Amino acid sequence: MAPKYLILADGDFGPMTSKTANSVIRYQPDRVVAVLDRRLAGQVSGQVLGFGGNIPVVASVREGLALGATCVLVGIAPVGGRLPGAWRDWLLEALEGGCDIVSGLHSFLADDPVLAAAATKHQRTINDIRRPPPNLPVASGLAKAVDALVVLTVGTDCNVGKMTAQLQLVQELNAGGLRTRFVATGQTGIMIEGWGIAVDAVAADFIAGAAEWLVRKGAKDADIVLVEGQGSLNHPGYSGVTLGLMHGACPDAMILCHQASRRYIGDYREASWLRIPPLSEYVRMYEVIGSAVHPTRVIGIALNTYDLDDHAALAACEAATRETGLPCTDPVRFSAAPLLEAIISAHRAVR
Amino acid sequence: MAPKYLILADGDFGPMTSKTANSVIRYQPDRVVAVLDRRLAGQVSGQVLGFGGNIPVVASVREGLALGATCVLVGIAPVGGRLPGAWRDWLLEALEGGCDIVSGLHSFLADDPVLAAAATKHQRTINDIRRPPPNLPVASGLAKAVDALVVLTVGTDCNVGKMTAQLQLVQELNAGGLRTRFVATGQTGIMIEGWGIAVDAVAADFIAGAAEWLVRKGAKDADIVLVEGQGSLNHPGYSGVTLGLMHGACPDAMILCHQASRRYIGDYREASWLRIPPLSEYVRMYEVIGSAVHPTRVIGIALNTYDLDDHAALAACEAATRETGLPCTDPVRFSAAPLLEAIISAHRAVR
Repeated sequence: MAPKYLILADGDFGPMTSKTANSVIRYQPDRVVAVLDRRLAGQVSGQVLGFGGNIPVVASVREGLALGATCVLVGIAPVGGRLPGAWRDWLLEALEGGCDIVSGLHSFLADDPVLAAAATKHQRTINDIRRPPPNLPVASGLAKAVDALVVLTVGTDCNVGKMTAQLQLVQELNAGGLRTRFVATGQTGIMIEGWGIAVDAVAADFIAGAAEWLVRKGAKDADIVLVEGQGSLNHPGYSGVTLGLMHGACPDAMILCHQASRRYIGDYREASWLRIPPLSEYVRMYEVIGSAVHPTRVIGIALNTYDLDDHAALAACEAATRETGLPCTDPVRFSAAPLLEAIISAHRAVR
Repeated sequence: MAPKYLILADGDFGPMTSKTANSVIRYQPDRVVAVLDRRLAGQVSGQVLGFGGNIPVVASVREGLALGATCVLVGIAPVGGRLPGAWRDWLLEALEGGCDIVSGLHSFLADDPVLAAAATKHQRTINDIRRPPPNLPVASGLAKAVDALVVLTVGTDCNVGKMTAQLQLVQELNAGGLRTRFVATGQTGIMIEGWGIAVDAVAADFIAGAAEWLVRKGAKDADIVLVEGQGSLNHPGYSGVTLGLMHGACPDAMILCHQASRRYIGDYREASWLRIPPLSEYVRMYEVIGSAVHPTRVIGIALNTYDLDDHAALAACEAATRETGLPCTDPVRFSAAPLLEAIISAHRAVR
């Protein structure tokens, strides 16, 4: 039986903050019974996010249990991924109330003695999505050899839509007759797809090895593999994850993802570390550094325009195409066709 | 009392294979009583490596104990860093014989129940050098702000001399009156320097954070910080570590390290993944991608010419300078002066 989620996103539920919560609501709304955020209790997801309809926001675990929750999903992805202290009591209440726990935090909840004891006592499970599998390989370029076309999303920053772009494309490619697999590399993608590795949580020597393992597995009986990208090549904190993932996955093609209104890396978190350079500089940087291990090129741009009106969104896509010469769309808001065509054309070229 | 090491390097002791063993022998020869490698038992380090004089190679832990060993150092760094199966018995014998254990493997020996129990029983310690400290930050560019000049060694591959170059420079800079600190980022450097973090073993999200923490600590009361580099920006397995370290450390200047005779990445391990491109391409790649977070440039080349004759070694240095326009030397074989001058000049420029 599919789980019924109570999503914990206290203090963080919003279009740009509760990334894991939002994606589960977007792609598996039938599984979500409530979101816990005391600030916004009484509202519904549609009001807060612009999607997710009448999924209620509640102020307590008790309300979530009353709505039929069978699993608590830790639905924020804070910097560093650690558990906010006050949440332990909620998780204990949920375990006592009969819920399992699914968590994407870096600090593994199953290793918390109090939570682990409570899970055992109440015969519930704690699933730490980010816990790496044992015995990962060091990458050695083996992903180059897969027959499938490998497409990686890359970005101008974190949280711009690298996973969402792939999820928007995978169904249409399959519907068009190309056997296409989505390969999840982060906690949210794993929750949605049911398998994957959170490459940001493996020991650094094994980032590329994890990506290589994932691509080779995803490529079995597939024509196209769509790999979820991570971070950005110029992100002060996460660029190592980005590059390890690139060099391990050996993409034949990349889709550059950007949030059209964003000006600084990290500014969605009020950090503003670095001004985001022009898209054409990213194209060059990703192609040069990616091709150092396996020849690759950027074949399209996916813009996230959620905070623009239709006119500004369309203008942003046109400007990106003018600057880079590449097809561009917002695959959530507009048709994904320009990116689908770019992928199909790249697939034809490698056959 | 300083430890007396028996270094385990069975099947691997040699100029290009037993990296950890070799560096400890080069920089702390007085601490090494023997090397265990059954293939080469009866020889001495000088014969095998060209340095390390009469340090004997032995065939058993028993012989090492008889020579006064108080600590077994796991002195190889195999791909992936895991313990060869047969070594467990030797380590048990060493613990029973009164030795501590220092290990740089990715698989933590203190987590091995049998070894841990033996250590407790015999009141010995097991020090896993690669175990990351808890609560590392995610980097956010803070290393930019240190007053010291930060110099990072970068490379064309693993195992070309990035640590050695810094260790050759640190004493001379201090002797010249510039307060200079070596910052260790790998297991061997940590063994030699006594502190540091093995950045290749931290969870991927924290690579840059570990580097940022190290540089800020190393920069206290220092004029110059020499950061040990890792891997290479085009290494199929380790590039993520390389880039995370770069962006976390925010170097003002870089020294490019290369083994003059090497043609392929990984060929010292018979892997030959990728042909090594010209040095000038590395200079451009490191400068472009490094400067994406903090402005930086390559100020010199350190060549490792251990397997060339004097004439060929000098010719290789001259060719590197001709190609790149940068000062070049082998700081182990020849004078380090060209690199020292480049660092001093860069230090003057930022003051």
